[in-house]
Amino acid sequence: MNKIKSTISILILSVLFTVHANAQAGKTIVNNAKELDQAIKAAKPGDHLVMANGVWTDIIIKFKGVGTEAQPIVLEAETPGKVFIEGQSRLRLSGEYLEVSGLYFRNGFTPKSTIIDFRTDNESVANHSKITNCVIEGFTQPDREEKDNWVQFYGRHNELSNCYIAGKSNPGPTLRIYLNGNENINNHHKIINNYFGERPRAGGPHGETIQLGDSYTSMTPSYTQVSNNLFERCNGEVEIISSKSNFNEFTNNIFFESEGSLVLRHGNYAKVDGNVFIGNENSTAIGGVRVVNTGHWVTNNYFYKIIGSDFRSAIAVMNGIPKSPLNRYNQVTDVVIAYNSFIDCISPLQFSVGNNSDKSDVLPATELRSARPTRTIVANNLIYNHDVNETKPIFAYDEVDGVSFYNNILNTNDVSGIDTNGGLTQEDFTVNKVTDWFYTPSKSFSDVYNGFDFEQISKDLVGNDRTDNSAIGAVTFPFDDKGKVEINKSQYGPKWLDRSGKKAKSKTIKVTSAEALAKAVKEANSGDVLELKSGTFKVSETMKIDKDITIKSAGKKKVKIVYSGAANTALFQMLPKGNLNLDNVAIEGSKTQDAFATLEKNMSTVYKLKINNSEVSKFSSVLRTYKGSLADSLVVSNSTIKDCTNGILLAGEDDDKGDYSAEFVTIENSTFDNVDQNVLNYYRGGYDESSIGGTLVLRNNTFKNSGSKEESKILLQTRGIVNIDFNGNTFKDNAVSYIIVLWGEKGQVSVNNTIDNSGEVKTEQNLKMKLMY
Amino acid sequence: MNKIKSTISILILSVLFTVHANAQAGKTIVNNAKELDQAIKAAKPGDHLVMANGVWTDIIIKFKGVGTEAQPIVLEAETPGKVFIEGQSRLRLSGEYLEVSGLYFRNGFTPKSTIIDFRTDNESVANHSKITNCVIEGFTQPDREEKDNWVQFYGRHNELSNCYIAGKSNPGPTLRIYLNGNENINNHHKIINNYFGERPRAGGPHGETIQLGDSYTSMTPSYTQVSNNLFERCNGEVEIISSKSNFNEFTNNIFFESEGSLVLRHGNYAKVDGNVFIGNENSTAIGGVRVVNTGHWVTNNYFYKIIGSDFRSAIAVMNGIPKSPLNRYNQVTDVVIAYNSFIDCISPLQFSVGNNSDKSDVLPATELRSARPTRTIVANNLIYNHDVNETKPIFAYDEVDGVSFYNNILNTNDVSGIDTNGGLTQEDFTVNKVTDWFYTPSKSFSDVYNGFDFEQISKDLVGNDRTDNSAIGAVTFPFDDKGKVEINKSQYGPKWLDRSGKKAKSKTIKVTSAEALAKAVKEANSGDVLELKSGTFKVSETMKIDKDITIKSAGKKKVKIVYSGAANTALFQMLPKGNLNLDNVAIEGSKTQDAFATLEKNMSTVYKLKINNSEVSKFSSVLRTYKGSLADSLVVSNSTIKDCTNGILLAGEDDDKGDYSAEFVTIENSTFDNVDQNVLNYYRGGYDESSIGGTLVLRNNTFKNSGSKEESKILLQTRGIVNIDFNGNTFKDNAVSYIIVLWGEKGQVSVNNTIDNSGEVKTEQNLKMKLMY
Repeated sequence: MNKIKSTISILILSVLFTVHANAQAGKTIVNNAKELDQAIKAAKPGDHLVMANGVWTDIIIKFKGVGTEAQPIVLEAETPGKVFIEGQSRLRLSGEYLEVSGLYFRNGFTPKSTIIDFRTDNESVANHSKITNCVIEGFTQPDREEKDNWVQFYGRHNELSNCYIAGKSNPGPTLRIYLNGNENINNHHKIINNYFGERPRAGGPHGETIQLGDSYTSMTPSYTQVSNNLFERCNGEVEIISSKSNFNEFTNNIFFESEGSLVLRHGNYAKVDGNVFIGNENSTAIGGVRVVNTGHWVTNNYFYKIIGSDFRSAIAVMNGIPKSPLNRYNQVTDVVIAYNSFIDCISPLQFSVGNNSDKSDVLPATELRSARPTRTIVANNLIYNHDVNETKPIFAYDEVDGVSFYNNILNTNDVSGIDTNGGLTQEDFTVNKVTDWFYTPSKSFSDVYNGFDFEQISKDLVGNDRTDNSAIGAVTFPFDDKGKVEINKSQYGPKWLDRSGKKAKSKTIKVTSAEALAKAVKEANSGDVLELKSGTFKVSETMKIDKDITIKSAGKKKVKIVYSGAANTALFQMLPKGNLNLDNVAIEGSKTQDAFATLEKNMSTVYKLKINNSEVSKFSSVLRTYKGSLADSLVVSNSTIKDCTNGILLAGEDDDKGDYSAEFVTIENSTFDNVDQNVLNYYRGGYDESSIGGTLVLRNNTFKNSGSKEESKILLQTRGIVNIDFNGNTFKDNAVSYIIVLWGEKGQVSVNNTIDNSGEVKTEQNLKMKLMY
Repeated sequence: MNKIKSTISILILSVLFTVHANAQAGKTIVNNAKELDQAIKAAKPGDHLVMANGVWTDIIIKFKGVGTEAQPIVLEAETPGKVFIEGQSRLRLSGEYLEVSGLYFRNGFTPKSTIIDFRTDNESVANHSKITNCVIEGFTQPDREEKDNWVQFYGRHNELSNCYIAGKSNPGPTLRIYLNGNENINNHHKIINNYFGERPRAGGPHGETIQLGDSYTSMTPSYTQVSNNLFERCNGEVEIISSKSNFNEFTNNIFFESEGSLVLRHGNYAKVDGNVFIGNENSTAIGGVRVVNTGHWVTNNYFYKIIGSDFRSAIAVMNGIPKSPLNRYNQVTDVVIAYNSFIDCISPLQFSVGNNSDKSDVLPATELRSARPTRTIVANNLIYNHDVNETKPIFAYDEVDGVSFYNNILNTNDVSGIDTNGGLTQEDFTVNKVTDWFYTPSKSFSDVYNGFDFEQISKDLVGNDRTDNSAIGAVTFPFDDKGKVEINKSQYGPKWLDRSGKKAKSKTIKVTSAEALAKAVKEANSGDVLELKSGTFKVSETMKIDKDITIKSAGKKKVKIVYSGAANTALFQMLPKGNLNLDNVAIEGSKTQDAFATLEKNMSTVYKLKINNSEVSKFSSVLRTYKGSLADSLVVSNSTIKDCTNGILLAGEDDDKGDYSAEFVTIENSTFDNVDQNVLNYYRGGYDESSIGGTLVLRNNTFKNSGSKEESKILLQTRGIVNIDFNGNTFKDNAVSYIIVLWGEKGQVSVNNTIDNSGEVKTEQNLKMKLMY
């Protein structure tokens, strides 16, 4: 016994000695979890704990310590970006003045509910601590339905800076700030200089990139600063940022083609200043700023091609619910929207968004958004549209009687029909192009309105002084700060991050046999094209698609693939990140297998599938999907589907939580012939306003001889899908009662469809849905 | 025409000259409204506009100007307290750095909705301005149902200091702060060193003394300071102060026998520090602090004989409504209750007040207060009770699972049955008497809990430092600051105010004839006693009672007054402030008149009536009252009521707004014989929780041969009356179906009543009431 004790003591001593021996100039290099733990326990103010380069797998870091302002305790990578945190790993901090730098989280996921947490237990939070120069990339749960938050803030005066964070595809905000408990309020956290990379579409709620508080703490003072960040394609849900506390500041951020908005959802007195929102002409999902509640100032922002409407307009000012419940919509009051520029946004100012007072017979009073914005000022904004003569710069879903307009200008004729009492005037002017997306007026409009407290808007978008030389719009005149309005990605995220975005050059692989096909699918790089020589390929094993791959015929004639695999297997199995493009190929089964299918579980992120100019025949189903999978997009075009038992199955959701199975489904110029049932079963159960869709395009197709075994008696099942474009299709001899049941409230209509011996199109105005809050 | 113009010019010039001529050292004396207006228009920073001594009747003052911090513009009384504002008058201010001093508002009322308003119109508010050394006394609307606010705050940095304000008896807060509009938030108003004198019971809602914001602006930052004020018998309603905005401070105030509480009703993060709440052993209506919402700190307060429970306990921590509507009850979270002393309060700490979750079958979900307080800390409080061995220091209306107790002590055995996890311990100690109501522990308890941010509680109740010498309870040990805990009324209100409270010495007037009686009633001083020589007084004219007067028999035998006045007139007409005490008198009518009646309108304030050892017979009604009248108390004791058509009529309310007609009704040891109908009709329509009652005591009476013409078939009608003590009465031969209908929910029960041939007592558990919000 004594001997064992001695041995242990020696071991401990030797470890301590090792740690000590490596210490140079306050630096302690650690090589494994045990050394790290001990170094943390021994750390004094000013110490640097250096994690050795390499892969750290399944590492649970509990970084507790007390540094000082002058001498923080630093946990850092030996070489920034060369310390890889993989497997089931996480990091928690508590104490004072701690700093973590240079770590790279990848190839794994957190075993608990957070990757980085500014507390180590319910009682111990971090203060004055920061995470900087780190990367979290695709460190997402294998099960896309498993919820977590990647970075979780508690305490006060903490910071996330110069980090790159991307690829979260499970529910839960990427970054969340907690305010429950007095030790977490008045937090003055800083989220600055970060690069928030792509967050895939979520196909359901809880896909925010940043959430600050929740409705239960929406009365708390937060004072969080979110500044100088780049949000690139943060498509998680309708709220990129969800501000739910008070006195937060969102300044000088760039939102690049991100499908959602900066939403002032709960809480009050936010400052939204100097941000840039960049959309494009293709997407109505890219939003700007959505305003709820009281006392926000939305100033000096620049909006380019934000062409969405309603929730996703450039500025969406909502209607509230009178005496709203805590978690619903308070009335907008005392808001100032000033000195913003809107270029090519068509109808950027939308008021009373969410008004549903016409639904008083189907909704309870606590759901009726009938309280219009009041005591709200819209002043000194500039609206410019190229190539149009008439626009509705203001779009209102209710009367506009609580908004005062002063000194706003636009270049087009205003056909809004809204009386602004002279506060929005048409002016003759052009714009100068500064960058691809930045335009400034070619002349000065210096007659600005100075309302109460307007002197606090002392700078413009790029920091120029407004005191003596102000002008309508986001920038003063003349403008010669081109350098300040270019997106310089090197400003965002860690210095060491490779932002080149270079991919391996895609190559074409000639395939002449079934064996070669299987091998090529396995070994190809993402982006490669597999060209199949004409003839028939007899395939007996499932091919797994986990990358971007195209399979096409080498010639003009369709190449044929005949699948003889076991029953209930798929010819192509779609894995997370899989993106299969099938072109000019005919695939054929023996009625017992699926043409395409997802994994049954662990579909950690989205997949894409495109079937073009192809033929699918004799399968048990065309596409079989499971709960938790999400097709970002599914396209069937110029193709024929025939002699299948089932068609496209996108109805895996069974708990009505609003997590549907495909975001965009497009079926066009195709023929469905002799598909027994579930020609299309595209389902969304549960409803909230967080997500776009699904979105279904059905154009110029022919459906015939199908639906004979359809139990629902509906040929195309689309229950709960929000957007449907149903146009130019032909239906002939389908043995069903209904072609489709459209959702009238969402504006779904049947256009130019021809129906012959195929049941009818039905429209239900209001759908009874389970609300998600 | 020219001549007229010239004359006008000369007049104007001469007025200007007069104004100028009176100016001495920047002082301009003004004698009338016109001069005042002109002086205001001409005023420059540093000017003093002096209102000449005397009575200013029907004066509308619009004080607009721009002073500076160093040189405010001052509007002042020639001699403080000698400028009387009377009639229909009011004062409004707008601009910067204005000061009003020394005015005395009395004998009148405002013609509009305010007496003093810190704005002159919707667009023009005052900032950095103050009202000081003024009095508003009884300047109340003649119609008690007409609503107004006496002092109305807008703008920022305004002050009410050293004022005496008393006698508001109509609806509407005495002082109200508005926060609608960005120019009114972050206001930092100061309400300091004022003397808030008696506010009579209101018999309905809207009787707050101070209201800060409302539920619609409850998200706004206010930062109002209410400090060093004396609240003396501010009995308006359940909320003496109603805080409905954020970051307000209530410090060092004294609440003396005021029926109500300092209520943190909406809004969050209030500081309630160093206040004194003084009750007495007779009243359960005198409350302390009622807590709703988030983040309040209730520290260093002293509570003496606050013996009420529920809403009116010393500390009432409420249950909230889950996801509460804006105007209802948010959950209590993150509240700190520390370093308070409770002397003789019995059960000072009451939790989950308002819990009504057992009523889920009769109330909508939006009314169910089922969300218990959470993340709430109760620490370092001292509880002492004289002369009892066992108490329930904590009283809970629900589980106590969200409250943490640390280092609280009490001297009695705790029979609460609440597990405080050792956070409330019984200690052996006594207290030293410092003043009539101030006691301190005779030994030190210095083992204090130091929670998060507790270092901000750096001082005790009287300003002693806690840093190095803290102790449990409101004051540190040893305590030798007697001078700081005496009520020195000269500290509150204007220096020139007569606080002696001396009244003319009451005298006894011997009355020997009916004429002399009428003359004496008219000419007596308040407090006088009229002694009627034995015999019969034949009175034919109504006697009006507008003061405190006693009419009694000079001998042991009842004296008799026979009234022969016209039909529908009253022998005694009760006017506002009337207080009639009838003792040992028999009054008799001829069945067409009322014995007592109020005015039909303009009952501007309460009246009182006591009938003791007397007899009332042959009247159309014993007491006839009208809508808008309020009996503060009505007592019938040791008396006989007989042969009347109606009894006591207290049912004037016809609009169910919760304004009932009598606060306290006591009927004891009396006999009602042969009263045809409305033996008692005491009605409250509409219900909210702002007011106490009514309160009815019915003890040891006999009711017989009555109710024969009662349409309701209920002998004693008490619908909506909240408190009923129904004990020891005898009912015989009353031709009704029900004696009384009791309200079960309010705990009304029948005790020891004897019923013979008189219908039955019925109890309704829940009463359907019109809610008032």
